[in-house]
Amino acid sequence: MMVRFITDVPGFRAAGVHAGLKPHGAPDVALVVSERPCVAAATFTQNVVKAAPVLYDQALLAQNRTAIWAVVINSKNANAVTGPQGLRDAERMAQITAEALALPHGAGVFVMSTGVIGVPLPMEKVERGIRLAAQSLSPEGGPDAARAMMTTDTRPKHSGLAVELAGTRVSVAGMAKGAGMIHPNMATMLAVIATDVAVLPPVLDAALHYAVERSFNCISVDGDTSTNDTCLVLANGLAGNTPLQEAEGEAFAAFRDALTAVCQDLARQIAFDGEGATKRVTITVYNAGSFEAARQVGRTIATSPLVKTALFGRDANWGRVLAAAGRSGVAFDPQRTNLWFGDLQVLRHGLPVPFDEARALEILSERDIFIALDLGKGPGQATVWTCDFSYEYVTINAEYRT
Amino acid sequence: MMVRFITDVPGFRAAGVHAGLKPHGAPDVALVVSERPCVAAATFTQNVVKAAPVLYDQALLAQNRTAIWAVVINSKNANAVTGPQGLRDAERMAQITAEALALPHGAGVFVMSTGVIGVPLPMEKVERGIRLAAQSLSPEGGPDAARAMMTTDTRPKHSGLAVELAGTRVSVAGMAKGAGMIHPNMATMLAVIATDVAVLPPVLDAALHYAVERSFNCISVDGDTSTNDTCLVLANGLAGNTPLQEAEGEAFAAFRDALTAVCQDLARQIAFDGEGATKRVTITVYNAGSFEAARQVGRTIATSPLVKTALFGRDANWGRVLAAAGRSGVAFDPQRTNLWFGDLQVLRHGLPVPFDEARALEILSERDIFIALDLGKGPGQATVWTCDFSYEYVTINAEYRT
Repeated sequence: MMVRFITDVPGFRAAGVHAGLKPHGAPDVALVVSERPCVAAATFTQNVVKAAPVLYDQALLAQNRTAIWAVVINSKNANAVTGPQGLRDAERMAQITAEALALPHGAGVFVMSTGVIGVPLPMEKVERGIRLAAQSLSPEGGPDAARAMMTTDTRPKHSGLAVELAGTRVSVAGMAKGAGMIHPNMATMLAVIATDVAVLPPVLDAALHYAVERSFNCISVDGDTSTNDTCLVLANGLAGNTPLQEAEGEAFAAFRDALTAVCQDLARQIAFDGEGATKRVTITVYNAGSFEAARQVGRTIATSPLVKTALFGRDANWGRVLAAAGRSGVAFDPQRTNLWFGDLQVLRHGLPVPFDEARALEILSERDIFIALDLGKGPGQATVWTCDFSYEYVTINAEYRT
Repeated sequence: MMVRFITDVPGFRAAGVHAGLKPHGAPDVALVVSERPCVAAATFTQNVVKAAPVLYDQALLAQNRTAIWAVVINSKNANAVTGPQGLRDAERMAQITAEALALPHGAGVFVMSTGVIGVPLPMEKVERGIRLAAQSLSPEGGPDAARAMMTTDTRPKHSGLAVELAGTRVSVAGMAKGAGMIHPNMATMLAVIATDVAVLPPVLDAALHYAVERSFNCISVDGDTSTNDTCLVLANGLAGNTPLQEAEGEAFAAFRDALTAVCQDLARQIAFDGEGATKRVTITVYNAGSFEAARQVGRTIATSPLVKTALFGRDANWGRVLAAAGRSGVAFDPQRTNLWFGDLQVLRHGLPVPFDEARALEILSERDIFIALDLGKGPGQATVWTCDFSYEYVTINAEYRT
């Protein structure tokens, strides 16, 4: 069986229902539930200002990493900058979920919220939504759940795959929402990943950290980060593999790489669905001396409004790419740089290569654009994903709150 | 006599002429010349990728800080990423200027270029322009020179004032160009400041450093920095004051503050003339613990595309302001923050204050918008200036090169 939706992982059911937070009957409350307790790991926003559900989840995870049963999600309201009432509301969402699902005493429920900041949650609607979602859970509920977590996303984001660990089939699948405020360090981005692997908490932690560094922390839509970003992984152990007890060895590497692949696929979908995006942009920085340096250069290029507007305008403006790299904080010798748009080299050893403008326009008229920058320093490369800046980006963000 | 243009400073003449780099006869080559040698100080772009004129000026300043006579400027072409030929061209611009002005042997000439990156300078046109400018020098040439350095600026930028140092009148006046790629750390921003103060080089250096930290390094249009940013100050000593020999004392403070006021006025004009700007935005961060921390928070808010598009949309979206502050890298307690748009408080001790939406819309419909953020940490404040992000910003930058 192909693994694509979160509910394609054995033991997981999900639902996405309309609770009246969004207009026009669109789904706005989601539940993902495991039939047995899960080992959990998570990464959270680095922002000093953290939303109530982030604070709630961090506290939960500090005391419970092996008996998480469910995740409850609402869109349209971020429950951020809502003070003590916000914290009580986040806790209440978890309680209502545990009640509605009749979970055993001590069962943990993660809470995620996304949407407008500073407005108290309409708890009556949210409560009704959670109870409705609990009644609607199904092994086919993955797509609905993913739709319920969307804000300005134009499409739901799914990814999944199966991998063999010493002859045992293990599934990994996730869903995510992004768009706007997407940036390294976990910006308004919610991701829930389910797997049936049997794994100890610190090992799941290590795998998630590795995957997030190479996926969600490599995307950028607009350089802003949010108060709510969270990436959760729940592992229910139903695959029956020999439990992963150490963050090393072949089985661990196979699982970690599967998790990374799912996270990268979701991250790319988020970056490419940036608000108003017309281009899917993949930037690879080579020979930067280290992965971290390469990623830092890549991120600076990926967040440059001048680069992003040039890409929207199909302008092979390599000067802006180089100028962005130059201010990234990573030292390099401009005379050793090489730069390509697609297969068209535009800079060789720091000097412009005369190129065919018609061919450049052709490359930049594609929906997928690949930029490669070689810094000539030494081993160390990274790929980041982003999108262009269009009129539509301004429209969406000038009118979001109103 | 009022001091407004650079040529209002005794002993300085200037010209701005059309050399054929810009279309429609617009001025594109400028000269500023002193009737006697000047003490000079300068700050340059922090970008790893530095344009040829920046490298030329840095080398010149390393060997000559007391016999600078002139500045030659061209727009439309940045002479950046132009390799060894670019360096030769920058040097040649200085030579042609010295020749055309018949300057004495050893006279220093600064070179500035701004415009497209990676295209060799059309030296024939540039040479003709320099010779024409040399013939057009006049004590009324300040406004023409300022127009000749413009790129996408919508208006020339001037500022000047006179100050008394121990009874002696000293003039300080400058001109600048900005727009696009404007950011802290000296982004595509050129500024030339002339003064008749008598001062020693290290003292002029200290005054310029102080002024730039509080002016050009406090503005941001789009977070990008350029290969060419330069701020020069030339002091010809004609005021006849007791030469400033130390970076302390009343006379030094009076000069330093005058220079800072001129730089801040120019910086504000640059920020408010950002590409496509419809709003002039002044952000003051209070009680951040230090000037540096306050400026870092202010800059992060000022470069946030989400904040800038919200301002364009007249949306009192304080959540985005707070989220930007939260990711600035400066630690603070969200529960102690206060935030105002104009005189309207929207956040008190970390919680939203219900406010009159009509009044907020009124405040945000003004051309000048003031945002004040109090972090409640301890002494330390800074003001940064920026503008909004409009459709026009995207238009200008998507079509700049073509």
